[in-house]
Amino acid sequence: MTTKNSIGIVKTKIFKSSNSLRLQSGKVLKEYSLVYETYGKLNAKRNNAVLVCHALSGNHHLAGKYSSKDKHPGWWDNLIGPNKPLDTNKFFVIGINNLGGSDGSSGPKSINKKTNKPWGSKFPITTVEDWVNSHEALITYLNISKLAAVIGGSLGGMQAIQWSIQYPEKIEHAIVIAAAPNLTAQNIAFNEVARQSIITDPDFNKGNYYEKKKLPKRGLRIARMLGHITYLSDDVMGSKFGRKQKNKSYQYDFNTEFEIESYLNYQGDKFAEEFDANTYIRMTKALDYYDPANGNKKNLSKIFKKIKSKVLVVAFTSDWRFSPNRSKEIVKALLDNNINVKYAEITAASGHDAFLMTEPRYHAILESYFKEMLRN
Amino acid sequence: MTTKNSIGIVKTKIFKSSNSLRLQSGKVLKEYSLVYETYGKLNAKRNNAVLVCHALSGNHHLAGKYSSKDKHPGWWDNLIGPNKPLDTNKFFVIGINNLGGSDGSSGPKSINKKTNKPWGSKFPITTVEDWVNSHEALITYLNISKLAAVIGGSLGGMQAIQWSIQYPEKIEHAIVIAAAPNLTAQNIAFNEVARQSIITDPDFNKGNYYEKKKLPKRGLRIARMLGHITYLSDDVMGSKFGRKQKNKSYQYDFNTEFEIESYLNYQGDKFAEEFDANTYIRMTKALDYYDPANGNKKNLSKIFKKIKSKVLVVAFTSDWRFSPNRSKEIVKALLDNNINVKYAEITAASGHDAFLMTEPRYHAILESYFKEMLRN
Repeated sequence: MTTKNSIGIVKTKIFKSSNSLRLQSGKVLKEYSLVYETYGKLNAKRNNAVLVCHALSGNHHLAGKYSSKDKHPGWWDNLIGPNKPLDTNKFFVIGINNLGGSDGSSGPKSINKKTNKPWGSKFPITTVEDWVNSHEALITYLNISKLAAVIGGSLGGMQAIQWSIQYPEKIEHAIVIAAAPNLTAQNIAFNEVARQSIITDPDFNKGNYYEKKKLPKRGLRIARMLGHITYLSDDVMGSKFGRKQKNKSYQYDFNTEFEIESYLNYQGDKFAEEFDANTYIRMTKALDYYDPANGNKKNLSKIFKKIKSKVLVVAFTSDWRFSPNRSKEIVKALLDNNINVKYAEITAASGHDAFLMTEPRYHAILESYFKEMLRN
Repeated sequence: MTTKNSIGIVKTKIFKSSNSLRLQSGKVLKEYSLVYETYGKLNAKRNNAVLVCHALSGNHHLAGKYSSKDKHPGWWDNLIGPNKPLDTNKFFVIGINNLGGSDGSSGPKSINKKTNKPWGSKFPITTVEDWVNSHEALITYLNISKLAAVIGGSLGGMQAIQWSIQYPEKIEHAIVIAAAPNLTAQNIAFNEVARQSIITDPDFNKGNYYEKKKLPKRGLRIARMLGHITYLSDDVMGSKFGRKQKNKSYQYDFNTEFEIESYLNYQGDKFAEEFDANTYIRMTKALDYYDPANGNKKNLSKIFKKIKSKVLVVAFTSDWRFSPNRSKEIVKALLDNNINVKYAEITAASGHDAFLMTEPRYHAILESYFKEMLRN
C-alpha cells in the first residue's frame, strides 16, 4: 500500500495577462493578474492537467503548505496529493484564485494602476463566465490545449460545467460536485441578506475601506454566520450541537447560552479577520448571476448541446443549499443530449459542506473516476 | 349562509397588576401592565373564553380595526370574527401583548417607575413560562376560572402547550399550531444570527437607544430579512419569485437584480420602522429557552403527565422551521399519557407562515374543532 502524503511545500505563481478581458457586464479589464499553484508534473503529451475551481471563500491554495511551520494545508488537501484521489503522481493539478478574489489575483483589494490605489468599489463584478475566460487564458499560457478535467464543488462546480459549455474542445471531463444549474429564490435570498449585512455596515464605506482604519467586520461576520447555517444540515447541527449549553443553567442574558451560538460566533469572528468583504459580496453576485439556461429550465438541454466533455455529477443527500434534485436537473439536461454522464448521490449527513470532507464513499468515487481517466 | 364579517371597531384595554411576578430568571417584576383586547361576550357560565397567544412579532391586536380609517385589521382577522372559524358570536376571545413586548405591555420600551426612563437593556428577559403566569393573572382578574381554549401558532403554540402544563385545571383545550417542543440547533442558530445583527449595530447602544436619535434599524432590518426566509418554504419562494428579475437584463451592481431581493428589502425596511429591536431579541430568547423536557426528549412524556386538557396539534407539510416531525414529538408524548389529542397535518406550500394564511383545509379543521367544543 502506498502512503497518502501531503504534496509538501508549495509555491504560489503569478500569471500577468497584458491582454484585456471583456467581462460579461460589458466592462473591460485592460490587464489582470491571476495567482495560481500547480502540483505534480505536466506529462509529455501535456494532457494530464486538472483545473480545480474554488467556491465562495476558497482560493488557489488547494494542497500542501507554504513552509514547514505552516499549520494549515490548502483547502482540498484531503483530496489532492500523492496517491490521494486526485493523485499528483499522475496528474498536473492547477488551482487559481478567481478574479475579484482577495488572495493575490486582480480584485477589489489589488492596486488599480490608473489610480495607484486599491480598486475598492470600482473593481467590476465578474461572473462564472468571466472566470472561465480568464482560466482559459492561463491554460493557454501554460501551453495546455486540452484539460484532462475541470473539477469543483458548489460555485466551483458551476465553473466546471461552464467550462464544458464555453470551451467544449478544451475539456475532457467536467466534475460537478454539490452544484446547481442556477440559484433558487431561497439561495438568492440568503445571499442578499449576507450582502445587505455587509453593505449596511457603517465601516463598509461603499466598498472603499482599505485606506481606512476600520474594516466592515461586523457585516462580514454576520454574513459568515448565516452562511455556515446553510452549509450544514439541520441533522448534523443537531447531532454535533443539539441544545448543548455552555453553562449548567441558563444565564438569562444575551451572551451565548448554547454551544451552537459559540460555534457560529467563533466562525464569524475568524472569517471577518481573514476575508475581504468586497470579495465576499462579489462572489455571492457571481452565484446569483450564474444561469446558463437564462431562467428557462428547458433551455438547459439546448445549451448543453455544445458540450463534448464527459461529466461526473456528485450530490449529497443532506445538502439543502444545492439539493440532489438540482444536480439531477444537470444530469437530465446532459442525458437529453446523450452526453456521457455519471451521477453519484452520496448519503452524507453533513450537508453542503460534505464536498470538503473526507467522506470515504465520495472520495472513492472520485478516485476511481480519475483512475478510469488514466486508462482511456 | 351567514356572512363572515370583521369584528368591527375594537379597543385596547389595560391590566395593571400590582402583584409582583417572579420570573424564571429569578428576577422579580414588582408590578407590570398587560395590554389586551377582547371580542365577543363572556357567557353566564364564564366558560367560553379563548386566549390567543402571539408569536415573535405579534401582539394583542388579533382582529378588527381601531377606526373606520384604519387600513390594517388585527393579525388574525381571517380566523377571528363573527361566523369565522373562531366565532366571536360564540366565544369570548382574548388577545394579550406579552411581557417584553413593545405594544403597550411592560417591556424595554415602557417606563421603569424607578428611574422614570424607558427600561431599555434593564428589562429582564421573560420566558414562555413567565408569559403564561402573567396571562393567568389577567384571566383571574377577568374572573375566568377555566379557559375554553388557549390557541397559538409558532411561539404562540408553545404558550398553548405550556398553559396545559402549568395550569392544567384552568384550560379545557390547547390548540398548538406550527410549533415544536423546543428549538433545534438550526433554529437557535438563525435566532443568534438575528440577535448578533441587532446587538452589533452601532446604534443599538447595548439596548439603550430610546433617548438617542437613532434606532438600530440596520440590525433589525437584517434580522427580519433573515426571518422571512425561514417563514417561507423554498417551494413557495420559487413559485412566487423564482429568478424573476427587476430589469430586463442584469445591471452588474449591488442594487437589487431579483424580485426576491426587493421583497426582502421591503419587508426588512418596513419592519425596522415599526418594531422594537429590544423586543425582537427578547422574543428570540424566549424561543431558545423554551424546552419543557429540559433537553431530554423522553422527559416530554413525564412533563405531559400533568396535562388535563384536550389538545389539537396542527402542522404544515412545507414548514421547515417547525416541521411536522416536531409536532409529532408533541403528539407522541401526549399519546404516551393517553391524552385526548387530535393531529392534523395540512398539505400547504407556504411554509411556517401557513398558520397565518387563509388555507381552507386548515381553517375548516379549526372551525369544526371549535364547533365540537360548543357541543360538549
